[in-house]
Amino acid sequence: MSNQRIAIIGGTGDQGKGLALRWASAGFEIVIGSRDRERAIAAVAETQGILSASGGANINLDGAANAEAAATASIIVLTIPFAAHISTLKEIREKIRSGSLIVDVTVPLETAVGGKPTRALGVWAGSAAEQCRELAPEGVQVVSAFQNAAADALSELARDVECDIIVCGDDKEAKMRVRPLIAAIPGCRYVDGGPLANSRTVEAITALLIGLNIRYRTHTGLRITGID
Amino acid sequence: MSNQRIAIIGGTGDQGKGLALRWASAGFEIVIGSRDRERAIAAVAETQGILSASGGANINLDGAANAEAAATASIIVLTIPFAAHISTLKEIREKIRSGSLIVDVTVPLETAVGGKPTRALGVWAGSAAEQCRELAPEGVQVVSAFQNAAADALSELARDVECDIIVCGDDKEAKMRVRPLIAAIPGCRYVDGGPLANSRTVEAITALLIGLNIRYRTHTGLRITGID
Repeated sequence: MSNQRIAIIGGTGDQGKGLALRWASAGFEIVIGSRDRERAIAAVAETQGILSASGGANINLDGAANAEAAATASIIVLTIPFAAHISTLKEIREKIRSGSLIVDVTVPLETAVGGKPTRALGVWAGSAAEQCRELAPEGVQVVSAFQNAAADALSELARDVECDIIVCGDDKEAKMRVRPLIAAIPGCRYVDGGPLANSRTVEAITALLIGLNIRYRTHTGLRITGID
Repeated sequence: MSNQRIAIIGGTGDQGKGLALRWASAGFEIVIGSRDRERAIAAVAETQGILSASGGANINLDGAANAEAAATASIIVLTIPFAAHISTLKEIREKIRSGSLIVDVTVPLETAVGGKPTRALGVWAGSAAEQCRELAPEGVQVVSAFQNAAADALSELARDVECDIIVCGDDKEAKMRVRPLIAAIPGCRYVDGGPLANSRTVEAITALLIGLNIRYRTHTGLRITGID
């Protein structure tokens, strides 16, 4: 149980696998979580294969059921479909250790209810990240980040991810804990997005970017200009 | 009454004056509108002063009361505080000529109700732009654009405005009519933001950028990466 072990909950999805690939490649200790432990193990094997092929060494990559993954990590990254957001949090919350950090990457895309990925749902709490905070145990900070980094871009290990990572959260120190995870991905840059409630906008931006991806047949990212 | 005359409604505010400056500098025929005709005339004089000082020639710049300005233009740009959005549209709608285009730059910042510029209000119609469409006369298309271009950046004529202009609207041709206005501002780039409803996100981005401006003591803009 390392103090810097990162659990990627729902890590068998494209976004989770992309982040696992980047972070494992940078030397972080990663555990991929899935509802189905076997699928987590398969994602680990797949990721290890890609990393070996690209000459990676010192890979520290594990697979587990979501709750088990959450129990052994100090940073818990949520890359789950919005439809499973509440149920997954209810499933893992008891296992999360006090002092851990949740990094919510979830976006309430309309696909959760059979709709379009170019639209975001209204969430009662304001955003997925704020819903997460409602469900997180005491003593566990919540920030949001990485929603705008395209899975396609993350998965192309040879290319930079041309995207600023807007981090929202109400605790400065918690936001600081995400910085090394951003610095580890070439092309990404930390931007302080302000309070957790600003996740409403950052999450909606993902739907906007997905629309651009479709219209321009590309994968887009975001840069904030005017910040050196 | 030129076919390409642009009315900037609420053009005495910072955003409106900045756009007037850029477009007049590029040779467009501009009329600055204000609730108070005298204030419009003063903004014209101020803008002419800046343009003369920077060596501008062929300036075609006029001032008028909002309704009069709207009546003589083929493109009507709304740069009004959200608190005056409905009342201004009700005031000018009768005067807008069929076939004209409304470009809504309005953002429903919480300042409209005494709150923060870093927050956006929920709008019943979905966004200021959709509210505008509800109030626009028949035969008049509505698009949204320029909400993310900082007034401070627009006003610095010697510097490029480092910002993509995300244009939302439900009519392809209407969106095309905005392209020359974007191309006329150095550093700006047209991005097709999809349907008018996506203005919800683009408007909210303005509040997010204002927060960044405060935190980073700068004026920020937006770039979409991955689009050539």
